[in-house]
Amino acid sequence: MRFVTYEVEGKTCFGVKLEDSVIDVAKLSKDHNGVVPAFLKDMKSFIQAGNEAFQYVTELLTQFEVNGTVDPRVIRKVEDVRLLAPIENPGKVVCVGNNYMDHCLEQNVDPPKQPLIFSKWPSCIIANGEEIELPEESQQVDFEAELAVVIGKKGKLISEDEAEDYIFGYTILNDVSARDVQFGDGQWVRGKSFDTFAPLGPVLVSKGEIADPHDLNIKLHVNGEVLQDSNTKHMIFSIPYIISYLSRGFTFEPGDIIATGTPHGVGVFRNPQVFLKDKDVCTINIDQVGTLQNIVKKKQTGSVD
Amino acid sequence: MRFVTYEVEGKTCFGVKLEDSVIDVAKLSKDHNGVVPAFLKDMKSFIQAGNEAFQYVTELLTQFEVNGTVDPRVIRKVEDVRLLAPIENPGKVVCVGNNYMDHCLEQNVDPPKQPLIFSKWPSCIIANGEEIELPEESQQVDFEAELAVVIGKKGKLISEDEAEDYIFGYTILNDVSARDVQFGDGQWVRGKSFDTFAPLGPVLVSKGEIADPHDLNIKLHVNGEVLQDSNTKHMIFSIPYIISYLSRGFTFEPGDIIATGTPHGVGVFRNPQVFLKDKDVCTINIDQVGTLQNIVKKKQTGSVD
Repeated sequence: MRFVTYEVEGKTCFGVKLEDSVIDVAKLSKDHNGVVPAFLKDMKSFIQAGNEAFQYVTELLTQFEVNGTVDPRVIRKVEDVRLLAPIENPGKVVCVGNNYMDHCLEQNVDPPKQPLIFSKWPSCIIANGEEIELPEESQQVDFEAELAVVIGKKGKLISEDEAEDYIFGYTILNDVSARDVQFGDGQWVRGKSFDTFAPLGPVLVSKGEIADPHDLNIKLHVNGEVLQDSNTKHMIFSIPYIISYLSRGFTFEPGDIIATGTPHGVGVFRNPQVFLKDKDVCTINIDQVGTLQNIVKKKQTGSVD
Repeated sequence: MRFVTYEVEGKTCFGVKLEDSVIDVAKLSKDHNGVVPAFLKDMKSFIQAGNEAFQYVTELLTQFEVNGTVDPRVIRKVEDVRLLAPIENPGKVVCVGNNYMDHCLEQNVDPPKQPLIFSKWPSCIIANGEEIELPEESQQVDFEAELAVVIGKKGKLISEDEAEDYIFGYTILNDVSARDVQFGDGQWVRGKSFDTFAPLGPVLVSKGEIADPHDLNIKLHVNGEVLQDSNTKHMIFSIPYIISYLSRGFTFEPGDIIATGTPHGVGVFRNPQVFLKDKDVCTINIDQVGTLQNIVKKKQTGSVD
């Protein structure tokens, strides 16, 4: 299924996306079963509730296909709602650096021997369609197209073979990076965590929908020009390996996000360099996962928001 | 007030600590006012609710001092409950590196020109009395005594003058660090975020109780031997400066934690070096804030928990 969080009439809803429409799952549950289980409150609650919740929604959608709905508010056209980030409050955003061979080559660095880990703070997550703000402190704001894994259940010491069981699904993350701050600080988190620096979504696709997460074309365009164009098969460390490796040291929790690294073509390593500027349109496509688009906005000096 | 989260009879309670006892605030509210406001659910909800909630609890405690309680479960001896980490689910743990002049001198590094920021994942927070586990991947697990600031309200672009308004209070954090992993990775988050690497608490002291957060003795003992002994007046960047500086780039949210850096005396820069080993007792005292004590445990090879 393709899960979304969306806003309509001032309310935030947990939903399933069909071709051109979204289903309000809580309302559908009320309509069909007369009740709304607590796990339909939001995406994180749903993921935390595990297989039972997933099964419940699967059956609900099957009923809907057969019987439809009596409540017109259950189903709306996508263009009539505002899609939000699928998860706004993950416990952690774990990022893997230099995880594409082509991205190591463009930097002239050796591929890492083990996954190189850094962090973004969840407070910088924004939705598809929201603006990436250029902070005054940086003149070098760059883009990074990434396949993001969303963890489905709590786990530690997870073997590579078991890793699939701990995945809920996949979405897209733009690992926006202020290069001057990132490299100036040495530690990357501040340059990677300015507000709006983690566009996420718009759809969280459950793992069953993705035939092979290691064979997806991944592209990033700025104003229609293709600047990143690769395939997830070029990842150095596979997703099961990353999960297994990291879970030796720390516990993964439902809703945690792993950004699996970016392929070659980022702005800072291009010749000439390319950085995001006011009004740029930054678009990421990943096969089977979707399209994440954000417009860049230069903050007016002295503006407070 | 001195706020705590504690467990008794299998339930997690939000409480206020008196000299030798803890008050279950939700039960006291029920007892005196017949209702339990939603903001008494847990520490984070309480902090998020702001001044109104703080005022409510202040009045409740005043009533209690006058009238006592009819419900014996409202007040218990500290030794009859298990104190938990005051906040277990902060949105982010923001750490400031090299923020004591004495700690820069022991490393032979220049003091930073701006706060050096790194991150720990909230999943590594443990309570006073819980065990710090030595991971198999590290032979160099070190301690760092730190004064932790807990943010009280959402804010961005906060001036130094306003910063005090955004602070809820203070607690203690032991920034446990696997030095070999930290320096091996280059990015510090993995070596700083092994499970159990953020002992926190036990008490969250509201800001009004602390006369001057920049004049507190801070000490760390291992097995009774004093290894860190300094004062928060040796911080290079003051707490208002750190909040103001960081809030230019990102939004602080209620419950966020800022670990304000550690003074000199950490194990890796001692001669000879000192690292934590099985059964070590690691104790941090900060004037007016309290005492945080944890025992170190070497994980048995192959054990799964």
